[in-house]
Amino acid sequence: MSTLLIKNIILNNKRKDIYIHNEKIEAISDKLDITADRIIDGKGKHAVPGFVNMHTHAAMTLMRGIGEDISLMDWLQNVIWPTETKLTDELVYWGTKLACVEMIKSGTTCFNDQYWNLPAAVSATEEMGLRSVHSYVILDLMDKTKSSFLKEECESMYEFSKGWSSRNSFSVGVHAPYSVSPEMIQWATDYARKRGLPVHIHLSETESENIDSVKNHGMSPTRYLESLGALGPETLAAHSLWIDDEDIKILADRGVKTIHNINSNLKIASGYKFRYKELKEAGVVVSLGTDGCASSNNLDMLETMKTTALVQKAWRGDPTIMPLDELLSLATENGGKSLGLPIGVIKEGYLADISLIETSGVEFTPNINFMANFIYSANSSCIDTVICDGKILMENRMVDGELEIIQMVNKLYKQLL
Amino acid sequence: MSTLLIKNIILNNKRKDIYIHNEKIEAISDKLDITADRIIDGKGKHAVPGFVNMHTHAAMTLMRGIGEDISLMDWLQNVIWPTETKLTDELVYWGTKLACVEMIKSGTTCFNDQYWNLPAAVSATEEMGLRSVHSYVILDLMDKTKSSFLKEECESMYEFSKGWSSRNSFSVGVHAPYSVSPEMIQWATDYARKRGLPVHIHLSETESENIDSVKNHGMSPTRYLESLGALGPETLAAHSLWIDDEDIKILADRGVKTIHNINSNLKIASGYKFRYKELKEAGVVVSLGTDGCASSNNLDMLETMKTTALVQKAWRGDPTIMPLDELLSLATENGGKSLGLPIGVIKEGYLADISLIETSGVEFTPNINFMANFIYSANSSCIDTVICDGKILMENRMVDGELEIIQMVNKLYKQLL
Repeated sequence: MSTLLIKNIILNNKRKDIYIHNEKIEAISDKLDITADRIIDGKGKHAVPGFVNMHTHAAMTLMRGIGEDISLMDWLQNVIWPTETKLTDELVYWGTKLACVEMIKSGTTCFNDQYWNLPAAVSATEEMGLRSVHSYVILDLMDKTKSSFLKEECESMYEFSKGWSSRNSFSVGVHAPYSVSPEMIQWATDYARKRGLPVHIHLSETESENIDSVKNHGMSPTRYLESLGALGPETLAAHSLWIDDEDIKILADRGVKTIHNINSNLKIASGYKFRYKELKEAGVVVSLGTDGCASSNNLDMLETMKTTALVQKAWRGDPTIMPLDELLSLATENGGKSLGLPIGVIKEGYLADISLIETSGVEFTPNINFMANFIYSANSSCIDTVICDGKILMENRMVDGELEIIQMVNKLYKQLL
Repeated sequence: MSTLLIKNIILNNKRKDIYIHNEKIEAISDKLDITADRIIDGKGKHAVPGFVNMHTHAAMTLMRGIGEDISLMDWLQNVIWPTETKLTDELVYWGTKLACVEMIKSGTTCFNDQYWNLPAAVSATEEMGLRSVHSYVILDLMDKTKSSFLKEECESMYEFSKGWSSRNSFSVGVHAPYSVSPEMIQWATDYARKRGLPVHIHLSETESENIDSVKNHGMSPTRYLESLGALGPETLAAHSLWIDDEDIKILADRGVKTIHNINSNLKIASGYKFRYKELKEAGVVVSLGTDGCASSNNLDMLETMKTTALVQKAWRGDPTIMPLDELLSLATENGGKSLGLPIGVIKEGYLADISLIETSGVEFTPNINFMANFIYSANSSCIDTVICDGKILMENRMVDGELEIIQMVNKLYKQLL
């Protein structure tokens, strides 16, 4: 048993004490006369929910800056894919650790990952103390000879995942409708549904994906997945950028969750007209992600919130379209809803995933509107303390083991070049 | 006389020593065997030119977060304008000081300002050690009775500016073609040209401004200014967002400099399709600005570079359109060119406006491409040391007087609410 008391913190513009018992928020009140194993004085700081980064390829931190200012196909075919053939368990382990440090330092407490060398990635995450969902990636490039291997490996990874801590869980990753055969898409969906697992998939990231889908299947990627019976409340659809009204209706009817990754979409010029308003009105849960560091360079959800709102306001021509509180919920509560986890809200009974924000700097002066300062004026260096699952992962911006991890990555990444 | 030697710094990916004599960079070499009044060991750090923020309303830091998620006209008429009537010299002085701290901490060494209570703003800037150009704002709202007062005050401010240090200089501010009478636009242009002063103007920030201009004058704002003879190499045109091919030709022919302010344009939904490619091809100098903190919430030029590139790549559908080195020059060298000052480049003979970047953190791991890490991965907390005019304004992220300035603003800003 462990207990943690955060005193004198500002939560939703009111002074509160927060009491955490093991991994849960047990009490929030104006004043708690109680003791605890550890007491943090939160004076001058604000509490916000830990961010939920809903689309990552964590170990791609190793490829930060590896291919800049080049076209998408050049980037994929001549930079990323050849580099990924050189990945090892050791590289993925340290790359994921680096990603975890970066996420902790920018206030993320849970991430939804899809990448290779799954056991190495999970070991790193377990050790760093973050919450995560890790996909086993199914990617057969329509090659039927791979299916029995992929099925067996997926099954054995799922069995293996039963030994993970309660913070980390398993999902089935279907790379994308254009890169996975219909048989494997259906098998993966069925496998996930029977076990109550999420399915993490890339959907309509680029316009050319849609054009090809119409050419090959006579319909959009969303309608194609629907025709396979592969859309449901378990589906976590990253990007969902090039979707029309009929696609949105299908996503809503099936209870699909969508994940918007604005910085990646902008940087590799995939597009930017994410249809947030229509998705919201149709009742589709929208959350946010950063994508991997090879495309968007960092894992900073605070920056992601800002860019999301700025671009939504601009392309809609409407500065009222993304109010601050709604914006925060995309990066927190909606991630929790999408994963079916009690996270993303600071409330009694929820898991204790909380960041404490230092507001004494110029970016918070004057502090007329904390949330506007946090999202639009500050950067993630204002995040002082990060708590995940009731445990302190960062205090005074120091993360345990950070220097060693940086040194190891600097030693190892050259194997990829 | 004072001398400063920066040893073992990385400049354009090569290890160098930089010797500064008074306000100038006197020598850059692989190894300088020389002594100096002050020696900085730059080991592990990179040197970049100080940013030139080409469009600010500095004291609007006081209004940070004052009107969020509302429409442009609501924001202007019901929030900003009523608030500005309450400004005093004391408020502008401390608001400008706060802006200076914020700019220093985010690597800006020169700013091009247009705001009220000019003497107070200049005093603050002089004391903080930054380089600046400060406009006297002409804004008559077509009221002819104001013209003699405005002319006299402009003249007396120009005379007053002759007592400023060499770091700070005067420009004539013409608010906008829609808010200043043609007679005053012509008077201001003539006044500036005769004295070799810049003219700082807002041009085609919104689509409605263009529609009104066609209604009132039968032509675009650019063509209207051209018809008044009011465009020339002295013109610094903030925004220039809604311009067509003929406007671009006029701007190029007249040697006008344009200033792109992406975060402000996005946030108040003015637009985002800044025609960088066409302006560049026509030979127009393009630089970057943040605008005031009431519209874009901070004065961070590193963030401005990132958003500029992301949005250019996305709306053009071309990830190759804004290479990193070109992007840096927009925030540095092109500002220097626009102001006619030898700044924005780290080169012998230039003024010593330099930032030193700490690269030991996760955002720079691995450091395959420093410039990509600096602009796309890091945030301004990586800026460790800032030198302006040969003097150190920040070291280890500490700026002299920062705490007092924050305290004063927190005491005073309530006068505006």
